Amino acid sequence: MESDWERIQRRARVRGRMLRAAAGEVPAELVLKNAAYVNVFSNELGHGDIALEAGHIVGIGSYTGRRAYDCAGRIVLPALIDGHIHLESALVTPWEFVRAVLPHGTGAVVADPHEIANVMGTDGIEYLLQATEGLPVDVYFMLPSCVPATAMEASGARLDARAIDPLYRHPRVLGLGEVMDFMGVVRGDLDLLEKLEAAHHRGRPVDGHAPDLPQPALSAYVAAGIGSDHECHDLEDALAKLRLGQTILIREGTAARNLEALLPLLSPPYCDRCLFCTDDKHPNDLLDRGHMDHIVRRAISLGADPILAVKAATYNAARHFSLRGRGAVAPGYRGDLVLIDNFTDFTVEQVWRGGVPVLTPEGVPEGAPPGIDPRLEGGARRTFHVGVLSPADFSGGGWLPVIGMVAGEITTVPMGRSDRIDPARDILKAAVVERHRHTGAIGLGFLKGYGLKEGAVATYVSHDANNIIVVGTSEAEMAAAANRVIALKGGIVVWRGDRAEAEVALPIAGIMSDQALPVVNEQLERAKARAHGLGVRRGIDPFMTLSFMAIPVIPSLRLTTGGVFDVTAQRLL
Amino acid sequence: MESDWERIQRRARVRGRMLRAAAGEVPAELVLKNAAYVNVFSNELGHGDIALEAGHIVGIGSYTGRRAYDCAGRIVLPALIDGHIHLESALVTPWEFVRAVLPHGTGAVVADPHEIANVMGTDGIEYLLQATEGLPVDVYFMLPSCVPATAMEASGARLDARAIDPLYRHPRVLGLGEVMDFMGVVRGDLDLLEKLEAAHHRGRPVDGHAPDLPQPALSAYVAAGIGSDHECHDLEDALAKLRLGQTILIREGTAARNLEALLPLLSPPYCDRCLFCTDDKHPNDLLDRGHMDHIVRRAISLGADPILAVKAATYNAARHFSLRGRGAVAPGYRGDLVLIDNFTDFTVEQVWRGGVPVLTPEGVPEGAPPGIDPRLEGGARRTFHVGVLSPADFSGGGWLPVIGMVAGEITTVPMGRSDRIDPARDILKAAVVERHRHTGAIGLGFLKGYGLKEGAVATYVSHDANNIIVVGTSEAEMAAAANRVIALKGGIVVWRGDRAEAEVALPIAGIMSDQALPVVNEQLERAKARAHGLGVRRGIDPFMTLSFMAIPVIPSLRLTTGGVFDVTAQRLL
Repeated sequence: MESDWERIQRRARVRGRMLRAAAGEVPAELVLKNAAYVNVFSNELGHGDIALEAGHIVGIGSYTGRRAYDCAGRIVLPALIDGHIHLESALVTPWEFVRAVLPHGTGAVVADPHEIANVMGTDGIEYLLQATEGLPVDVYFMLPSCVPATAMEASGARLDARAIDPLYRHPRVLGLGEVMDFMGVVRGDLDLLEKLEAAHHRGRPVDGHAPDLPQPALSAYVAAGIGSDHECHDLEDALAKLRLGQTILIREGTAARNLEALLPLLSPPYCDRCLFCTDDKHPNDLLDRGHMDHIVRRAISLGADPILAVKAATYNAARHFSLRGRGAVAPGYRGDLVLIDNFTDFTVEQVWRGGVPVLTPEGVPEGAPPGIDPRLEGGARRTFHVGVLSPADFSGGGWLPVIGMVAGEITTVPMGRSDRIDPARDILKAAVVERHRHTGAIGLGFLKGYGLKEGAVATYVSHDANNIIVVGTSEAEMAAAANRVIALKGGIVVWRGDRAEAEVALPIAGIMSDQALPVVNEQLERAKARAHGLGVRRGIDPFMTLSFMAIPVIPSLRLTTGGVFDVTAQRLL
Repeated sequence: MESDWERIQRRARVRGRMLRAAAGEVPAELVLKNAAYVNVFSNELGHGDIALEAGHIVGIGSYTGRRAYDCAGRIVLPALIDGHIHLESALVTPWEFVRAVLPHGTGAVVADPHEIANVMGTDGIEYLLQATEGLPVDVYFMLPSCVPATAMEASGARLDARAIDPLYRHPRVLGLGEVMDFMGVVRGDLDLLEKLEAAHHRGRPVDGHAPDLPQPALSAYVAAGIGSDHECHDLEDALAKLRLGQTILIREGTAARNLEALLPLLSPPYCDRCLFCTDDKHPNDLLDRGHMDHIVRRAISLGADPILAVKAATYNAARHFSLRGRGAVAPGYRGDLVLIDNFTDFTVEQVWRGGVPVLTPEGVPEGAPPGIDPRLEGGARRTFHVGVLSPADFSGGGWLPVIGMVAGEITTVPMGRSDRIDPARDILKAAVVERHRHTGAIGLGFLKGYGLKEGAVATYVSHDANNIIVVGTSEAEMAAAANRVIALKGGIVVWRGDRAEAEVALPIAGIMSDQALPVVNEQLERAKARAHGLGVRRGIDPFMTLSFMAIPVIPSLRLTTGGVFDVTAQRLL
């Protein structure tokens, strides 16, 4: 085992080699000739040869190398960085995710394993740490701060401050993930404050999540040491937070897209206080639009300065998370680089990682996923602890509240009460089935605005407790759909009559597939089409929108395992 | 002894108190009412009440407090930060230095104890760490990287990578100080690279010092992971370094003043890549001009945006050195604040430290200096290890090189050779006497441009090896002056005939006085006046300029204990 000092000495020798190449005394391993490159320090396009040695950029100027790549004036960027993502939303393993985003120029992502932690606790975090080890995109982690997201949620795990603390020792764990229980912070909940102080004690960053939190509560939230927010959907909210010192993660993902509204932040004096994130990327969005390249391309198309947009997607993220040696094209930085054709098309032509090109002629990275501890792998396949359901489990309840969906929004409104399913009036039965601990808890309510005319739709609930949510036109079909999800050990099921019309199996922790991304995408798109075929309104994502109905932190009504919850009043109805 | 977790829990409870005040549920300890304040995040002047609790800012808006201070619209700034200073240059103890700068709004300085380390090694660093413990200005340290500064210097200590390494454990040690042996880096000297890698291994910043280093050597220097430079005296050099990723410390001190030349850096897109430092502040400069307030005032008077100038003096420094909770007026930041009247006069009216006002009505901070380990204190008073000198020690040597001083510069030019003193032609004898290790080494040469007509001037040599430098019109007076420095255990002596006409005793490590700053200043000014009285040219600082003559890193000729050294050719003449 190499001691610290032996490692320092070894690195000093490597550095010596780098410096000889930098000084031009020996040819560099690789030189990217005739490059235009984004200089994130002077906010301009620089020009020159980029010399690489021992995995790092060592010089920019006039160089010759043992190998050369002619950039022919095209543009070299630092590899792109996603500042906040829940990998689980891609429904595939990290390996599949990385294979999808690497050709789009992503070099690193900062993941919050909130979903899998809600199912498997620290084992879930450990699972993702192992599943991301040695991948060609660096996956950093922020520890989930709110498992369960609120006291209202029946999650598979409950992680207090001491439970997550040992995980800070992992070299890819950066800090504390989005503190979504903002009211808990403002109230001063002690366990939450201990999580925050533990992060501060270790000098780690803490991510925030506090949409539209007004003053003075916002001051309190920021005074707790929460350094960022990615939930800003309008400029006013973003500026209020920016002025108080928070870094704004401009989110442009699948479920929420705030780039256009926040575009003014990409100009001085705000641009250095912002970076980009996706939060959630679904399979079709990853395949159709790409990843961080899509955000930068879109920002530029909306009028942002290309240099500042690239900087937000690279250096600003690296600086915010103290990712040393990342996010710039400059001597001493890692040779994680992306070549694009031009700022308008923003087509990624090659990606280097540690100075090595990683795309094959087909544009696909090579390699294999890392092995995972059999105990964790086995545990991830055994996360459903719930008995067979019957129609009676979904019946009765008397006059229950009706949750009104709002077109194009994830907020809801109260729409009175109902005592029966009435598809003609778009009154559907909805249930959240506790599935982690055999509690038998099933919360019932009604849903209006979804549009289903026949059958039932059941899905894992990604946000946040990952119980089963099922919506149907009959209790029998609801039970059948939910039972099929359980049989799959997790997944999405569109049910009609006595059979599944479409399904997506998600056997890893009940939230991720073990199939390739294009396969999962095809299954999912077929299921969506079938759900729409059964009446689900166009413009609604049949599964994602459903999953939002169970998050008890978004106003005004949500469905929990205890029944319909009034988020504004903070009580069960 | 409080465990980590007990500390986290205690802090969580304190944080809870802060948040209740932030949320306006209880009155804050202190509210600065009606403040204009510099918002370093949005680069604008904000307005509101600033609420403080438990030593921290907790909210900005509308607040009532148990105590209130009416700012009446005047301007609140974060406490100012000096990004690089050698405290030893003030010739007084840190306590005296702090008493001088605190009324000028300084909240923190980043010190490089290079001088005392050259005398006392790690004991010298430890001495300054102890002498700065608990002071009302936070003194952080960068470990001196080049002791001795070059292989040419006969210093009192030789600190290799392993010798300085344990000091990183001290909570106020931030990183590795200015790597002035830039040629050693470019050459790849292994001990120097080990120092760099050790700092990188610990995630610590490394300061640079590489005036006018051309490409590709500059690329190599930066590729070594050296993140800043404070030696830029023109814009071209600064921009070359900034483009390669270095942070530029704009220096405006006593010996070197680069602010005017570098003023364009205080505008976009460069302003966030810059901060301020003084490098060296001498007693009269501290007393006459102040400290960081002087730099900001001057920057504004030269046309800089006041907000950006304040930001360079606060937030940019805190961010560069990862000084958490410093450098901004925002919730969660420390209550280290400065009240000024306006941006033009920039008069500091009050200073708060941890939310407590620290200036008495007379404007002087109260308190007492920290105690120092008697072993270190005793060691600091016994640093001269050299016998009594005689005129013969300074005689002979034959035809020696003449070092030509350049008016207004610290560079020198070769001016031929001489075999004798000739005050009429301004040819003076100069000597550097090794004083650390009884080696008996005395380097001899001649000096032209100093102007002394009678007597001798002897001084400690602040930069870098702190040997004795003496210049005289006769060998007898040179010996007498040097002997008096030795008797004082360090200091500055102006000698004529058989007596000291003026002297400053510097008994702490031979480089610092134990007297109050105004006393030292008076002694020093009297000595300067006497030196000028004996002929030293106006426009020359008789002692400081002399000390520069012994730094073997500034072109072209320097005097060392081995004789005259050609810096350009890197050889003794």
